Amino acid sequence: MIKVVIIGQGNVATHLFNALSKAVNISVEQINSRTLTTIQGSEITIIAVSDDAIQQVSKAIINREGLIVHTSGAVGINALENRRKGVFYPLQSFTKNAKIDFNKVPFCLETENDKDYTLLENLAKTLGSNIYQINSEQRKKLHVAAVFVNNFTNHMYTIANDICTKNKIPFEILYPLIEETAKKVQSITPRDAQTGPAKRNDTQTIKNHLEDLNLQQQKIYQLLTKYIQES
Amino acid sequence: MIKVVIIGQGNVATHLFNALSKAVNISVEQINSRTLTTIQGSEITIIAVSDDAIQQVSKAIINREGLIVHTSGAVGINALENRRKGVFYPLQSFTKNAKIDFNKVPFCLETENDKDYTLLENLAKTLGSNIYQINSEQRKKLHVAAVFVNNFTNHMYTIANDICTKNKIPFEILYPLIEETAKKVQSITPRDAQTGPAKRNDTQTIKNHLEDLNLQQQKIYQLLTKYIQES
Repeated sequence: MIKVVIIGQGNVATHLFNALSKAVNISVEQINSRTLTTIQGSEITIIAVSDDAIQQVSKAIINREGLIVHTSGAVGINALENRRKGVFYPLQSFTKNAKIDFNKVPFCLETENDKDYTLLENLAKTLGSNIYQINSEQRKKLHVAAVFVNNFTNHMYTIANDICTKNKIPFEILYPLIEETAKKVQSITPRDAQTGPAKRNDTQTIKNHLEDLNLQQQKIYQLLTKYIQES
Repeated sequence: MIKVVIIGQGNVATHLFNALSKAVNISVEQINSRTLTTIQGSEITIIAVSDDAIQQVSKAIINREGLIVHTSGAVGINALENRRKGVFYPLQSFTKNAKIDFNKVPFCLETENDKDYTLLENLAKTLGSNIYQINSEQRKKLHVAAVFVNNFTNHMYTIANDICTKNKIPFEILYPLIEETAKKVQSITPRDAQTGPAKRNDTQTIKNHLEDLNLQQQKIYQLLTKYIQES
């Protein structure tokens, strides 16, 4: 039995709490960080609060025997002020009310010694099987990479959606292409998967496309076309 | 029985030929446009060649009784010089040797009259069930939108892959996030799905991210961050 306390009320905290509640050999409790001035730590205390609040919350924990971890991609392990510390970063986009299949979520783990790593790995194994040892420096880069494949990719979808809406085209026509684009890079590298007018240097099509875009869209189109051609 | 001739040797032509060969009530033949000076048309002649060559190939067809269509997203219907003309645009990314599930491919159809539309629709129905009537002006915009969700999104994956390789992080860690990002916009709009430091206006994280990127990556990061914040 691993005793776990989760601090936080956001999406990550709640999804983790729900999943761990169903896991065998785990006893779990969820605490709102804002209602307490001191927090009773546990065997593993998971701080799942906003990046800015991690350090302050870690200071409020009074029982300091256990392992204290945070769940952030962007914050180093040393933001935690504890003897035994670690990171338990689930690399997925969590949305309120949307179901998460933890079996597919990669867990990026970091600790300062092997014994704590084994403990954290045992916790991760109760949820899923995609477990990676990632240090703070790597995790910082991984977080930037995640911004490109999630936030910026989603903005590409927003632009496409805007173009469709403006021209009375159902956006759903693009779903299969969006899915195929995402799947293809699991079998060939994205560089090998690159196609399109930029890659082919098809200047006439590029010119036609630019005429159909607004100023913001044009600037993004031109910059990405330039870099696809240079890469 | 619909008699079909496919002109072209590229990915679209070959995938269409293979799929139509297996379909019932279709007789299909594939012709290389470069080996012939004149081409015998059929009940439906599908010109699946590069955009630049469509008009020239359409002129080389000698039997002009049938319906002649092209498969391009970027070319208008009037590039075809025939009495009965149309467009049969399968909106998907076709790769050599990669299997295509035509059941999921949206077919964007255009003709000049209802009778030809019914014929083209019957052909599309033998392959799949996602059929849309899209005129030349809409198709042109749809093609630009496809560049954003396919070509430009793939470039986001390329940058993420470069960051991972440089920092000895397995790119596969990002597969579940890539898939989830693609899936999410089928249940909520991309604008509602937008998350991340740009959306939250988290200037410290943005600053940290920029420090980890090369010049090209920085320029893309800054431009997309700006437009996410403005939108």
